[in-house]
Amino acid sequence: MDKIKVIIWGFGAMGRGMAQMLLLKKGVEITGICDLNKDYVGKDFLEILNMKSDHPSIKINSDIDHLLSTTIADVVLLCTDSYVKGAFDKIKKIVSYKMNCISTAEEMAYPQASEPQLAKQIDNLAKAFNVTVLGTGINPGFIMDLLVVALTGTMVDVEHIEAKRVNSLSPFGPTVMHEQGVGISLNEYHKRIMDLTLAGHVGFNESIHMISDALGVKLTGFKQQMEPIITNIDRKSTYGEAKAGTLAGINMTGQGILHGDVFIDMIHPQQIEPESEGVQTGDYINLRGTPNINMAITPEINGGIGTIAMCVNMIPHAINAKSGLKTMIDLPVPRAILGDMRDLIDK
Amino acid sequence: MDKIKVIIWGFGAMGRGMAQMLLLKKGVEITGICDLNKDYVGKDFLEILNMKSDHPSIKINSDIDHLLSTTIADVVLLCTDSYVKGAFDKIKKIVSYKMNCISTAEEMAYPQASEPQLAKQIDNLAKAFNVTVLGTGINPGFIMDLLVVALTGTMVDVEHIEAKRVNSLSPFGPTVMHEQGVGISLNEYHKRIMDLTLAGHVGFNESIHMISDALGVKLTGFKQQMEPIITNIDRKSTYGEAKAGTLAGINMTGQGILHGDVFIDMIHPQQIEPESEGVQTGDYINLRGTPNINMAITPEINGGIGTIAMCVNMIPHAINAKSGLKTMIDLPVPRAILGDMRDLIDK
Repeated sequence: MDKIKVIIWGFGAMGRGMAQMLLLKKGVEITGICDLNKDYVGKDFLEILNMKSDHPSIKINSDIDHLLSTTIADVVLLCTDSYVKGAFDKIKKIVSYKMNCISTAEEMAYPQASEPQLAKQIDNLAKAFNVTVLGTGINPGFIMDLLVVALTGTMVDVEHIEAKRVNSLSPFGPTVMHEQGVGISLNEYHKRIMDLTLAGHVGFNESIHMISDALGVKLTGFKQQMEPIITNIDRKSTYGEAKAGTLAGINMTGQGILHGDVFIDMIHPQQIEPESEGVQTGDYINLRGTPNINMAITPEINGGIGTIAMCVNMIPHAINAKSGLKTMIDLPVPRAILGDMRDLIDK
Repeated sequence: MDKIKVIIWGFGAMGRGMAQMLLLKKGVEITGICDLNKDYVGKDFLEILNMKSDHPSIKINSDIDHLLSTTIADVVLLCTDSYVKGAFDKIKKIVSYKMNCISTAEEMAYPQASEPQLAKQIDNLAKAFNVTVLGTGINPGFIMDLLVVALTGTMVDVEHIEAKRVNSLSPFGPTVMHEQGVGISLNEYHKRIMDLTLAGHVGFNESIHMISDALGVKLTGFKQQMEPIITNIDRKSTYGEAKAGTLAGINMTGQGILHGDVFIDMIHPQQIEPESEGVQTGDYINLRGTPNINMAITPEINGGIGTIAMCVNMIPHAINAKSGLKTMIDLPVPRAILGDMRDLIDK
């Protein structure tokens, strides 16, 4: 069997990380990379990554139509968007070339939640072209949804779900610092809330509906809130800086409501240098029911590495799956791939 | 669609617990129960459970051939054995009636590990009769294997795996007390080790090979050890009693070896009343790699309830799966079923 062939569309932090990870794996090769960044276009990806490898040279291509029409690939890793609306035309294009697609777009982790009509279209298109479309990542995609679902599998009954992710933004780059408002004043925060230019965490709608659909619960409501995390001291990370009195990050909370009561409770404060004010990071799942389950992962699973790993590790599952739009609850559990990736492909 | 129909074969603690759980669920009914216990045969299961329900009367039947040939069922919950050898003829019988089978036998969680030839036969038979055979439970089946595998899905690379389950035997009945040697002297312990009548935990071989196969690692060895846990004080649980100086339980350890080094490390002390000597119970997974992951579930997920829940919650997945022998790494993640079970069946 030939090596599994992968195109990466979007060579930002996620796309570059996936390329680095793929270089470490057996039985898989990168056959094309698309990005619009002028500093990258035409350059070899190994030069950009500053890595040595015997992997064939791949030059960054800015023309996706040319790339898709002249390149053989089993799967495209789409690392460009956060929202289904932004990713939709790109997914349509990928699918029309009969390539499977794994998207990092947060809303694509469960597109049924925010864009049910586009989700239906993606499902129809994927079936028509006999390929699979999957959205995944660390969160949404694993920590606050798939892992919750899996733990409920050991329960006779579930009365209440709480998922809490307390993480550090310090490892992230300038884009995330801007998106999360790190270092801005409270005035600026309110202005950006009004302008709808402060995304905070995208994913509660997806995580909550992935859980409720998996468990067969018909929620009667969904809400989410955003609050600034104001630092009392000066904080500094590699790409972020927050002076005392400005935003160290954002605390997002969300609720899945069932007949007036909170059934699913999501708590997700993200900030740079949380330890500097005594905040311990971690992933926490507390399930009330028969039996109660209290899970803690400390510190939290690294968001950047986790998303990169999830997307690459799901490649065999996406290739094996029946055609259509799939989500993490439809497929076998993710797993690290330490052997030859081809061994995981169904004959 | 008719309700999903379930036969329970074996009406011990597990089978009875599954019947109780099924009574709480929508879209599913019990159509037959087989057990050889003279106190049960001919009695209505609701009387045995001491429960009221509008569920149709089901009398315990001791003749499995008569039961299987006269009863309609989608799936048989087989709650009789720990070893593949003991379960094999029963599974063969179930499959020949074109019924799916979910087994609690610990070795059936990954029968490829201990009985590769019987596993192959089960796979062939299940395919010939177009049904699915699945082994599951809390452990093996979830805590020390599937959950480990799922967490590695967020990792770029894995260097070492440690899974530790520190649990209390206090909730368990007389059978488990005997199997785990609770209350026996050290002399009796050594005698039973020689007689091969002290099982300890059955499942390390299964868990370790489920993990290594999922990750694509070809282990070069497998070992396990059993040590008595001698109590310093008198301990007493509902069904167990251990005087000071006798066994409160057994500590099992196991290793999956890769080229001379321990790659997978399993630690599983089981005893009654662990808190009485300051032992905190819990499930712990420590993964070394990129990134490191440290997970704790405290206290441990209850073994009895967990196994009951896993078997019932996997019913829709077993019905939906392609025919053949399946393991937990082949199927979508387990999940609590809070709605109508029929909604989870693929159309």
